[in-house]
Amino acid sequence: MKQPYYYLDHAAATPLDDRVVTAMQPYLQDDFFNPSGPYAPAVEVRRDYESAKHRLAICIGAKLDEIVITAGATESINLMIHSTGGHIVTTAIEHHAVLEAVAQREHTLVAVGPSGVVRSADVRAAITPKTQLVSIALANNEIGTVQPMREIGEIVRAERARRIEAGEAAPIYFHSDASQGAGQLDINVARLGLDALTLNAGKMYGPKQVGLLWVASRIELIPLVVGGGQERGLRSGTENVAGVVGFATALELVCQRRKSESVRLGGLRDYLQQRLCDVFPDAVVTGSYKKRLAGHLHISFPGIDAERLVFALESRQVLVATGSACAANYGTRSHVLTALGVAPDIADGSLRITLGHLNDDTNIREAADILVEVIGNEYRRVGR
Amino acid sequence: MKQPYYYLDHAAATPLDDRVVTAMQPYLQDDFFNPSGPYAPAVEVRRDYESAKHRLAICIGAKLDEIVITAGATESINLMIHSTGGHIVTTAIEHHAVLEAVAQREHTLVAVGPSGVVRSADVRAAITPKTQLVSIALANNEIGTVQPMREIGEIVRAERARRIEAGEAAPIYFHSDASQGAGQLDINVARLGLDALTLNAGKMYGPKQVGLLWVASRIELIPLVVGGGQERGLRSGTENVAGVVGFATALELVCQRRKSESVRLGGLRDYLQQRLCDVFPDAVVTGSYKKRLAGHLHISFPGIDAERLVFALESRQVLVATGSACAANYGTRSHVLTALGVAPDIADGSLRITLGHLNDDTNIREAADILVEVIGNEYRRVGR
Repeated sequence: MKQPYYYLDHAAATPLDDRVVTAMQPYLQDDFFNPSGPYAPAVEVRRDYESAKHRLAICIGAKLDEIVITAGATESINLMIHSTGGHIVTTAIEHHAVLEAVAQREHTLVAVGPSGVVRSADVRAAITPKTQLVSIALANNEIGTVQPMREIGEIVRAERARRIEAGEAAPIYFHSDASQGAGQLDINVARLGLDALTLNAGKMYGPKQVGLLWVASRIELIPLVVGGGQERGLRSGTENVAGVVGFATALELVCQRRKSESVRLGGLRDYLQQRLCDVFPDAVVTGSYKKRLAGHLHISFPGIDAERLVFALESRQVLVATGSACAANYGTRSHVLTALGVAPDIADGSLRITLGHLNDDTNIREAADILVEVIGNEYRRVGR
Repeated sequence: MKQPYYYLDHAAATPLDDRVVTAMQPYLQDDFFNPSGPYAPAVEVRRDYESAKHRLAICIGAKLDEIVITAGATESINLMIHSTGGHIVTTAIEHHAVLEAVAQREHTLVAVGPSGVVRSADVRAAITPKTQLVSIALANNEIGTVQPMREIGEIVRAERARRIEAGEAAPIYFHSDASQGAGQLDINVARLGLDALTLNAGKMYGPKQVGLLWVASRIELIPLVVGGGQERGLRSGTENVAGVVGFATALELVCQRRKSESVRLGGLRDYLQQRLCDVFPDAVVTGSYKKRLAGHLHISFPGIDAERLVFALESRQVLVATGSACAANYGTRSHVLTALGVAPDIADGSLRITLGHLNDDTNIREAADILVEVIGNEYRRVGR
């Protein structure tokens, strides 16, 4: 791959891994058959498709028939929320997919302090007897904070036990969007204490518009898209065999490399953070230092206009996002930073730096030099 | 592409055209950026994405900002029906995506006679003052019958005019799923008299799980999937740039080749039909001979078990579907044939033969020889 730039925005998009492209290729042309076809080549494609779903299931410690393939994380989240009745508990720093999907529903947004870490006691306090879903992302897509899933999972299980004890019929489930964490954190659904999980191939070196919703078998989904009955009737449409085979390959690869990659990215991130904080003593790192994705650095240079900074960096081949790279948010202040109580001048001077496969020691050192120079120039320009 | 078989099931799936693969390739790795990113390479990807949508719009005679990209035709149909209030008129022979989506809604299924052609007078009679949508596929996916779109479009326009005159507020729109017809029929939305159109890349040598919904700008869509605000807020989720560029390339190619390809496929189909009807005088061709897709032949051999026949043909490298290849239908009798009043023994003996790019004079002649031999064997086996 040509790479004439320093790519520091892996949370926004990732290129397909070569092995993912290789795995997908046959299904574009030679093995293009409709998996619902009755003849042997179509049946083989069906088998490969189911096998890819099985590989996805294994990576998260689930069963094949609990996986529903969707067109990315956003649809997966919408399908989960659409399938839930009652009251929903989520946080003020969730992705827009969750916030928009719960907007028309009875819900509570749990507040989150400056650390960006959700307090499980606050989740407990937000749950009412009418709550049927708690949805909290494993890692925040803007600031990279990792949430205490096991603790929240235990709270949900305790509430479920209480309802059974009390003879209350309303179910309660714990869902998480792990799109941002999958390459760097354990995503075993039992260990996380989840009832439902969303994943996104496009954030893990797989194809865009491919994702999944895993739900424990006791959860009944209500389809958003009906028709030919694919995905056990839960999500109709001719299957994207190439995309799902690519997704499975991508997830297996990130799972295999997770530990070493976390250590590697953590080292690069810490170097970058140290360097920037040393040179710019009033730089502010957002959120918890400890409970954070290894490759994630959300850092602010108060008084600097981050949008200007992004363009200045781009002219030096450093590609980085402002504090929030969300489509809905561009040009406005991040709802995550606002929820954390970050002051406006800090929010407006923040960059989201997210590392991944396209980074190594050499290019991060070079990128650091450019960041120091360009940020220094901006500080001089504004006379600070 | 290797092709050790005779593929006669183009209505079920099509391989990607080489030029489609070439067009998609850059966006998988080199230009993988999130189109919502602020830096120049991402902005260029955004431009390519919008340009691909513009090319799609031009092919159907529409405007760029009237196109919503979806994960295939099924989602597109669901989005249209979800966005409609009131009563819906459709036909008894529609695809399951339409039938399932209208099932929970007030609707009328217009009956269709043995020709498979919807009578526009029947559509007119089914429209009530509460009707807000008429949805009829351009060409039927099982029997290939082409519907009188202009006539139906005029009926819808007349009803709209009547309501305006009468001061009635309820809108009425005409939607069509043209997934099956796009490679062989004119799909200019104005000439078809449509207010909304569904297309599917996977049926026209483009990628699976990529489709579009075009709606005239006066129609307000109600999103099924909310979140980051992509597709003007009507369908959120990080854009499948590779897929949409592939879709645009595929649609341009089929539009360019439409006339010559229709003539070519019509010739091959007529040869096959003639040959089979000559050798098997009790063979029955389903539906109108004239108002039919050029590459489509739905033919029945009464007394023969079509599922057995499909397997026998498969062992001779001829890949063909039974009368209905729909996932929801497999193993059961086709709702289309039932609606047409086709007798059970004719329905159960029917094949759907659909021709396309993988066919030429030579392989259709060879396939015809094999069909004649294998069908003959089956007739002998059942003693007829």
